[in-house]
Amino acid sequence: MNNYQLLVIGAGPGGYAAALRAAKLGLRTAVVENREAGGTCLNRGCVPTKTLLHSSRIYQDICSGSHAGITADSVQIDMGAIFAHKRQVSEKLSGGILSLFKSAKVDFISGTGTIVDANTVRVHSAEGEQIYTADDILIATGSVPARPPIPGLDLPGVMTSDELLNGCDHLYRSIVIIGGGVIGVEFATFYNDLGCEVTIIEGLDRLLPTMDRELGQNLTLILKKRGVKISTGALVQSVEQTGHGLTVRYSAKEMPGQAEGEAVLCAIGRKPCLDGVFGEGLQPEMNGRSIRVDSNFQTSISHVYAIGDVSSRIQLAHVASAQGTAVVDLLCGKENSVNLEIVPSCIYSRPEIAVVGMTEQEAKEAQIPVKSGKCILFGNAKTVIMDGDRCFMKLIARADNHCILGAQLMCEHSTDMISEIAQAMANHMTAEQLAQAMRPHPTFEEAMAEALNDLIEKLNH
Amino acid sequence: MNNYQLLVIGAGPGGYAAALRAAKLGLRTAVVENREAGGTCLNRGCVPTKTLLHSSRIYQDICSGSHAGITADSVQIDMGAIFAHKRQVSEKLSGGILSLFKSAKVDFISGTGTIVDANTVRVHSAEGEQIYTADDILIATGSVPARPPIPGLDLPGVMTSDELLNGCDHLYRSIVIIGGGVIGVEFATFYNDLGCEVTIIEGLDRLLPTMDRELGQNLTLILKKRGVKISTGALVQSVEQTGHGLTVRYSAKEMPGQAEGEAVLCAIGRKPCLDGVFGEGLQPEMNGRSIRVDSNFQTSISHVYAIGDVSSRIQLAHVASAQGTAVVDLLCGKENSVNLEIVPSCIYSRPEIAVVGMTEQEAKEAQIPVKSGKCILFGNAKTVIMDGDRCFMKLIARADNHCILGAQLMCEHSTDMISEIAQAMANHMTAEQLAQAMRPHPTFEEAMAEALNDLIEKLNH
Repeated sequence: MNNYQLLVIGAGPGGYAAALRAAKLGLRTAVVENREAGGTCLNRGCVPTKTLLHSSRIYQDICSGSHAGITADSVQIDMGAIFAHKRQVSEKLSGGILSLFKSAKVDFISGTGTIVDANTVRVHSAEGEQIYTADDILIATGSVPARPPIPGLDLPGVMTSDELLNGCDHLYRSIVIIGGGVIGVEFATFYNDLGCEVTIIEGLDRLLPTMDRELGQNLTLILKKRGVKISTGALVQSVEQTGHGLTVRYSAKEMPGQAEGEAVLCAIGRKPCLDGVFGEGLQPEMNGRSIRVDSNFQTSISHVYAIGDVSSRIQLAHVASAQGTAVVDLLCGKENSVNLEIVPSCIYSRPEIAVVGMTEQEAKEAQIPVKSGKCILFGNAKTVIMDGDRCFMKLIARADNHCILGAQLMCEHSTDMISEIAQAMANHMTAEQLAQAMRPHPTFEEAMAEALNDLIEKLNH
Repeated sequence: MNNYQLLVIGAGPGGYAAALRAAKLGLRTAVVENREAGGTCLNRGCVPTKTLLHSSRIYQDICSGSHAGITADSVQIDMGAIFAHKRQVSEKLSGGILSLFKSAKVDFISGTGTIVDANTVRVHSAEGEQIYTADDILIATGSVPARPPIPGLDLPGVMTSDELLNGCDHLYRSIVIIGGGVIGVEFATFYNDLGCEVTIIEGLDRLLPTMDRELGQNLTLILKKRGVKISTGALVQSVEQTGHGLTVRYSAKEMPGQAEGEAVLCAIGRKPCLDGVFGEGLQPEMNGRSIRVDSNFQTSISHVYAIGDVSSRIQLAHVASAQGTAVVDLLCGKENSVNLEIVPSCIYSRPEIAVVGMTEQEAKEAQIPVKSGKCILFGNAKTVIMDGDRCFMKLIARADNHCILGAQLMCEHSTDMISEIAQAMANHMTAEQLAQAMRPHPTFEEAMAEALNDLIEKLNH
């Protein structure tokens, strides 16, 4: 059978969510994928990095265990085993996706899908070429790491997250990370926690420059205390092979600087992956490097839709999944109630960072009158128990109607707490409504009640 | 100055929350306490047990680290250091309470407070006796571990949590825990994780008998897999000193059984602490062993109020704190919006357990039509990464209006996620409203979205 109601190109979190939703709603569905099921997220992104961070966290816990009465001799880091665990996790989850496809009767087609016309996809694989037709086509091909045109970025030892995640049999003695955004910060945490010398070079004025200022500042203090070297406002000029490894030359405040490392990670962002997606003569409207879509995820080609990193302003797995479900619901005339505008974002640093909605600064720039409430967790029992770093929670609400507009959380388990705020925002809840819940003790969550009380006090003055 | 507007007896989480709230609202306030500030919670309860569990978790992480590429030789458990860390955490947090008192101008009076009449408290301390008067008196004396009249429970080596938390210079080779409730299960986790042989003897038919059946069943499977011996439906008859330690004799299904241990922990619950609280001739109405209070926390003696374990049906630190704030707001004619009926409850087992509201069974018994949605986390990326045990989330909603009625979460970080449900319940939210939030990936929280989707599907069929 070469004819489908929905043909999805790409089996990442956007594509597989869409395909499974389509099958559930009764559409004859296929997914074309030229690599593993699960896409970047499961194989070269979110999940592998979190798996590495799980290993480095264990190592750190051992090293700092004496504060809690646990000590160990000759702690060994087996990079081969760390990357083997990473692969096993990816394989298990990727296999899980294939099982879900199978039980949902979604056809998984291995190969590279090229859209020939509005209803036709040519799939190229080792076995040859095959033509499929579909009522609708969904592009969910995701993104790949960007490599800026800086001299030397093609030297051996200079990697993007893709190559770095392939693994290495030894721990680098030093690494220079170009880019202090989410990816850069997570890899810095991993390598620093394992004892590798880490330098971060960030072009803007602080780490995590797109987020609330205090997050980047607090994280900088914490990472510097752990020995990470951080240069901000630093523009990379070149990478050169030198005697001991690689030298990254940059200019910061018009002064030259340099950092040396056995390896260099280029983590300056990701770009949409469009290789081979469109056949000859087929040219959709673009939005910079992204495919332009309307509010229904439709591209300029009728019957062709796009979701996730390939077309979305925000490149996150859960955004792709939510869009994937939403576009299928739209196609089937079903109501989809997930709010696509309220996007939580997580960083798996130590402590974790999780944000949603507006920062105080952004609200002020948009001339929305806001108040912010804050709790620093120095008196939080769970934080004291684990001997944690400086953590805080910040909540933003409209000054007029007290509705929650955003939150910036920097503390352990914050990635599992941010949904409470996303949920409150999606339901237009006020600070007072959020404060009605009793918070259990002892938890990190207790700090939310304190931040809320602070916020409510400020809203009422 | 011996005259106050509010005099609080007991500086635990109920008493200190009340005193700080009173001071904030402008009342001349004092707290009488005959031990450390922070009460059972900070010194002999929640916080010390979580501190011990922090240590045992680190030990377990080291022992199981090889799955993630981290190994160590000769891992040492220093019980002295574990208990020293426990003391330091308690002292730091207790000192924090005293600082808060000081900056809020709450007088801290060391000694045992005895209510002489509706407006008078006599404080007895090493320095002698002092009389204080107050417009209102608040009893927040908490609870102490119960010791049932079982022969042998007074033998050396038979302890309640109070004595066990005093510490021991070595790790018991074996311990028998009488009681499979929250306290028993947390100590079982601590000792089992450190490699001690643990036996739990529970009188009812499963662990955590007051909670959803699946929680106790799942926990039993997990603990048994780790080598914990569990006898349920087992009534303890006696404890005897035997050659190798202590022997606990019990009968289960009318068959005799016995368990041996170097130590025995009696964890069968707690009873209100009323020692010396009421002077001669003063006899408030009681509710069993608890002080009877009306809906305004007033005892049968005018101007005398009671909160927390001494009078509350639910003995939890956060309930005491919430009641403490609420009673002061009532006294001052302030509105208090925290919902005191929606009480989250947490167990720091591995994985954690957190519940709020009704179970499906309870709803059925109350003849409320309900549906439940569930997610088993075997495909949850974070759970796969940490190679975790079987975890699940269960959500309950009314079949008629879809309002969330309760949740039972058994997974990592669930103690930090349960407030989301408490908050939804306090605001009468429906399953559909809760599902509007996008959940970030990869988190444990993602499973909430799956449980919600399952729930919504069942509600609509």
